[in-house]
Amino acid sequence: MNREIHLVKRPEGTPDHEHLSIVESNQPQPAEGEVLLKTLYVSVDPYMRGRMSDAKSYIAPFQLNEPISGGAVAEVVDSNNQDFQAGDIVTGALPWQEYSTANGESVRKVDPKLGPVTTSLGILGMPGLTAYFGLTDIGSPKQGETLVVSGAAGAVGSTVVQIGKILGCRVIGIAGTDEKTSYLTDTLGADAAINYKTENVREAVKQACPDGVDIYFDNVGGEIADAIYPRLNKFARIVQCGAISSYNVQNDQGPRIQGYLIKSSALIKGFVVADYQDRYKEGFEHLSKWLQEGKLTYEETVKEGFENIPDAFFGLFKGENLGKQLVKVAEPSN
Amino acid sequence: MNREIHLVKRPEGTPDHEHLSIVESNQPQPAEGEVLLKTLYVSVDPYMRGRMSDAKSYIAPFQLNEPISGGAVAEVVDSNNQDFQAGDIVTGALPWQEYSTANGESVRKVDPKLGPVTTSLGILGMPGLTAYFGLTDIGSPKQGETLVVSGAAGAVGSTVVQIGKILGCRVIGIAGTDEKTSYLTDTLGADAAINYKTENVREAVKQACPDGVDIYFDNVGGEIADAIYPRLNKFARIVQCGAISSYNVQNDQGPRIQGYLIKSSALIKGFVVADYQDRYKEGFEHLSKWLQEGKLTYEETVKEGFENIPDAFFGLFKGENLGKQLVKVAEPSN
Repeated sequence: MNREIHLVKRPEGTPDHEHLSIVESNQPQPAEGEVLLKTLYVSVDPYMRGRMSDAKSYIAPFQLNEPISGGAVAEVVDSNNQDFQAGDIVTGALPWQEYSTANGESVRKVDPKLGPVTTSLGILGMPGLTAYFGLTDIGSPKQGETLVVSGAAGAVGSTVVQIGKILGCRVIGIAGTDEKTSYLTDTLGADAAINYKTENVREAVKQACPDGVDIYFDNVGGEIADAIYPRLNKFARIVQCGAISSYNVQNDQGPRIQGYLIKSSALIKGFVVADYQDRYKEGFEHLSKWLQEGKLTYEETVKEGFENIPDAFFGLFKGENLGKQLVKVAEPSN
Repeated sequence: MNREIHLVKRPEGTPDHEHLSIVESNQPQPAEGEVLLKTLYVSVDPYMRGRMSDAKSYIAPFQLNEPISGGAVAEVVDSNNQDFQAGDIVTGALPWQEYSTANGESVRKVDPKLGPVTTSLGILGMPGLTAYFGLTDIGSPKQGETLVVSGAAGAVGSTVVQIGKILGCRVIGIAGTDEKTSYLTDTLGADAAINYKTENVREAVKQACPDGVDIYFDNVGGEIADAIYPRLNKFARIVQCGAISSYNVQNDQGPRIQGYLIKSSALIKGFVVADYQDRYKEGFEHLSKWLQEGKLTYEETVKEGFENIPDAFFGLFKGENLGKQLVKVAEPSN
């Protein structure tokens, strides 16, 4: 038997169990050229919320009554493809299924000797590359500049904080628990951290950024972003990576921001990591090097059990994760 | 006798006569190195509203009980500076006074043989350069792209529309009267025009931009901008030149826009023309050449009389001007 997690209803507000359903099915059979995969780890990511709506976006919506899909690590258990053999560990965009089939082009092998295979879903995968390209290309950091990062203890944010320090910025991280703010300053080396749930963010940003804000790496949007706009320095850059505070809100309203952009000749640029696919190799090389040199570290929050994927996903919107949120579905064979 | 217009109260909403006052004074005397100037034309511009507030901005606020200052054309009537002689026509940032003094560095001579001297306040001055640099540098237009311009019949917008056509864009202008929309299509060559006061802007933008919006040159912000964000194409650029709809509103609220920027990997960049001061010569040369070749045209709306400067300024927020709004204060001597 096999299990799959289907989108059964499109959420309008906060996604919950009524929108996702675990469905039993038969174990798939790999066709010629395909491999049979056993899912080991599933990545849950905030951007997936967007695919649950059918609004026009950069990526097609999930289909109703079909499995959700996203980043995963899997083991090849049977292969009709000469490039793969049983025991290989692979990563790619896979359906939320315990077992699935794939052709050779939709997955790539992960070398377990280079480090834990889960890093391919985190620091050496999509979140790491998102942090690297957003910060270096859009943020364009210069030595001594002030960088503010929201969602700073998440998979992307925690990498941005560290790359900011590597590149010589003064870094202020914003997160939602004292455990997370301590992690930012004590483990990641942030110069200051703000707990947006217990502090007055406007006042805290003012205190933490006496010279204003040169770069704002925004994962959250909403009222935290509102507190940053008035503090922007001339020619500030806002890296619009996410806006998680808006994902579950219909017609989210807030102060209009055009005036702030004009006053400070500031830039906001939205992006998705795929915009940089021609440069993934460069990003991967930088991240691997910094990781090997001990300049980058990472955390993972791992839930156990295929049936807990929905809760792990819902938890992203409650700020439950420190670093990368993963679900461990199965043990590898050896 | 001399007359001056002072800021006597900082407006919180829409500026009116209670905020500006005409004050009589003695005719100033030029010191050594200075010239005595008779003001001929005064430029009124939306950005001046920002200087009436004391909020931190890119330019210092006007002082209370001091004259407003801004772009003007004047005639030298007396000179203690060897670089100027009586009869010279000059332009620069001058106080709203019938007569004023200036040192040689704050004004530059205008050659009346090159065209009407008022063009130094419009198509060959700040508004023309604003249009040129905003569109070419931030908008980065490519042949065949769709460019939408708001405030399209104003001094900046009307220049943007025409440069957009010169550079091969499909151009849609948005303005507030049928006279203005006819001007956009019939005189400036816009491919389509939208009257935002009589049309459903969202629907009209959808109809006029079947292939989406690649560049949005925004002079107005507010609900017109709200109608554009959902139509942005991948990698769209928004040139945030102005936000006149917000200038007289405290805490203007609207839909949050971060999600749109992420979905389309779009950019918004605020700017002021002074950001490009090292490149003014380049801009001036392009604008002059296009003007001489007949590829650029312009309109001026001229009020007569020094005492009518306040009304001319207030009229900007009511959309009274077609093209550049000027006030003619005096005739030149010859």
